[in-house]
Amino acid sequence: MASDDQGTLYPVEVLREFTRQAFTKAGVPAEDAEIVTDNLIEANLRGVDTHGITRLLAIYIKRLRAGIVNARPEIKIVAESPSAITVDGDNGLGAVVATWAMREVIRRAGGTGACWAGVRHSNHFGATAYFTLMAAAKDMVGIGMTNGPAAMAPWGGAKAYMSTNPISFAVPGEDGPVVFDMATSVAARGHILLASTKGQQTIPEGWALDKDGRPTTSTQAAIEGTVTPMAGYKGYVLSMMIDILCGCLTGAQFGPHLGPLYGQFDRPQDIGHLLGAIDIGKMVPVPEFKTRLSQMVREIKAVPLAAGSTGIYIPGEIEAGKRARRLEEGIPIAEGVRQEFLEVARDLTIPFD
Amino acid sequence: MASDDQGTLYPVEVLREFTRQAFTKAGVPAEDAEIVTDNLIEANLRGVDTHGITRLLAIYIKRLRAGIVNARPEIKIVAESPSAITVDGDNGLGAVVATWAMREVIRRAGGTGACWAGVRHSNHFGATAYFTLMAAAKDMVGIGMTNGPAAMAPWGGAKAYMSTNPISFAVPGEDGPVVFDMATSVAARGHILLASTKGQQTIPEGWALDKDGRPTTSTQAAIEGTVTPMAGYKGYVLSMMIDILCGCLTGAQFGPHLGPLYGQFDRPQDIGHLLGAIDIGKMVPVPEFKTRLSQMVREIKAVPLAAGSTGIYIPGEIEAGKRARRLEEGIPIAEGVRQEFLEVARDLTIPFD
Repeated sequence: MASDDQGTLYPVEVLREFTRQAFTKAGVPAEDAEIVTDNLIEANLRGVDTHGITRLLAIYIKRLRAGIVNARPEIKIVAESPSAITVDGDNGLGAVVATWAMREVIRRAGGTGACWAGVRHSNHFGATAYFTLMAAAKDMVGIGMTNGPAAMAPWGGAKAYMSTNPISFAVPGEDGPVVFDMATSVAARGHILLASTKGQQTIPEGWALDKDGRPTTSTQAAIEGTVTPMAGYKGYVLSMMIDILCGCLTGAQFGPHLGPLYGQFDRPQDIGHLLGAIDIGKMVPVPEFKTRLSQMVREIKAVPLAAGSTGIYIPGEIEAGKRARRLEEGIPIAEGVRQEFLEVARDLTIPFD
Repeated sequence: MASDDQGTLYPVEVLREFTRQAFTKAGVPAEDAEIVTDNLIEANLRGVDTHGITRLLAIYIKRLRAGIVNARPEIKIVAESPSAITVDGDNGLGAVVATWAMREVIRRAGGTGACWAGVRHSNHFGATAYFTLMAAAKDMVGIGMTNGPAAMAPWGGAKAYMSTNPISFAVPGEDGPVVFDMATSVAARGHILLASTKGQQTIPEGWALDKDGRPTTSTQAAIEGTVTPMAGYKGYVLSMMIDILCGCLTGAQFGPHLGPLYGQFDRPQDIGHLLGAIDIGKMVPVPEFKTRLSQMVREIKAVPLAAGSTGIYIPGEIEAGKRARRLEEGIPIAEGVRQEFLEVARDLTIPFD
């Protein structure tokens, strides 16, 4: 197989089949295995390797095998009105639970014009954009957010209270969706852990605070401290909003009360999500919306570049380019990740490589 | 009258009556004059003087007198489904149009659980928090955003394309709402203009880019340039999302096609808003929501302070404190603003001072 500087390039279908088999062997019904596989592979295709099989396959399987994630959840609606529902995920895989909820949101928005689902008792659900893109594919506005384990202090504080809670937004365009998916921190904690794994003593300025809440560029001090919210106070406030909507409004856990993804295998995460859709055609004719959006995109790309700038990018543009390349060339798997996959394969007695 | 370092302190009721009379004399029906007065005075009470009568009364009146804002709009729904409507503001005062739309959103959300209104043909509507707080007062989640005249370049660009498009969010709590209202820029352009008015040669680092897109601390270069999006690329992306939702989704203008608030009196602004509400009680029992939110607030306030920190603030806390003080002490009116008010009073032959 070919390789690039990030690792060996595997054809997408090979990885897809391996992932599908792994989840099926771990007890997940075929249809749900297909969903979580698609969720993870799509993240890798879009270049978001922190949310693909490259980081998540082994830990998802481990949690399923430990019985701390429910392979066969009974997902159900526990509160219901035409445009707002609360979904209990029964501790299923986050991607499975949130896909179920977003399908219901899209179905209802197609009737009433808009719908929200608050989701409780869920787990890590991969990249948030996966769900907002489901709405965009149906000519709807998709909005999604999730809470997660604490990593960030409130602005002015020195101890982690909230997660780097991400928010995603997607709309359909004439040349593909405009979509973003952003953590409310400057940098993901994963990047700091990665720097440590690689033996890098320092991280860029602005990423982290030490355990006393002072800005630090020491990798070790950052690991003992917290990640910095994006835009200071504003990032903290956005993160708190997301935790209110995903935790307080759904009945899931919030703040430091959520279970971690790693290291603890005796309690569920009880993550909450909020997923919404607006049916564009109920507000303006869809072709008019797309024409206006195309004009905006064209005009933004035509803005004169700033001194030293390498280009102006529309949200989702870089990921779409990467997706086209990786569909053709394959997905790079670093040697350490390949070893993890081999272990998963041995453990579940399925083929890999 | 008493005075503080910001100017002469006027009792709230005196300013309220003056504002009410000014709008009525400028042709606005009594009920609508009451709405826009409340919108502006509330901003001043909460300490947001950039969005109170202190900045907006004179220009709103001037635009009404020039006939470029419609004093008696026929606001109507032009597209309708149970949970998503498009509202045509008929070029009315933004506060009047958006209050009308938000009342309709709240009414509908009370039935279906959630609703959105896209608003077109509107004008500057004051502080976005005014509308999200209307929802919070009804035990709903309020979400609001608006576009505006171009002041910010897309990330990597050197020319203003979009506004510092703000977003606001409010939820009800046991001890008052948790609410934020933030521009997607690091600092409002108004602060740069104010520095210039005061003869300050420099502004803080990070606020602005010069006309070639280079970071600058020169007030003059900043005025010729653009404001910096908060959190760099992420702020640009959030601002673009808001413009897509307020412009492309509503049929209002977007990007540099909106009319300015100042300086041009021959064309409407054609601003767009998106206003939404979720009825909390349709998803979880309201007392449970409030209990959980109180716990979160209490826990966040109890996080150990970072080195050098003066405190951890919950969004809306500082504004609520200011509101209590100003209700008692009055609202400070700087001498320059007082002169503006005297001119408005002379022009409309109403009393002031």
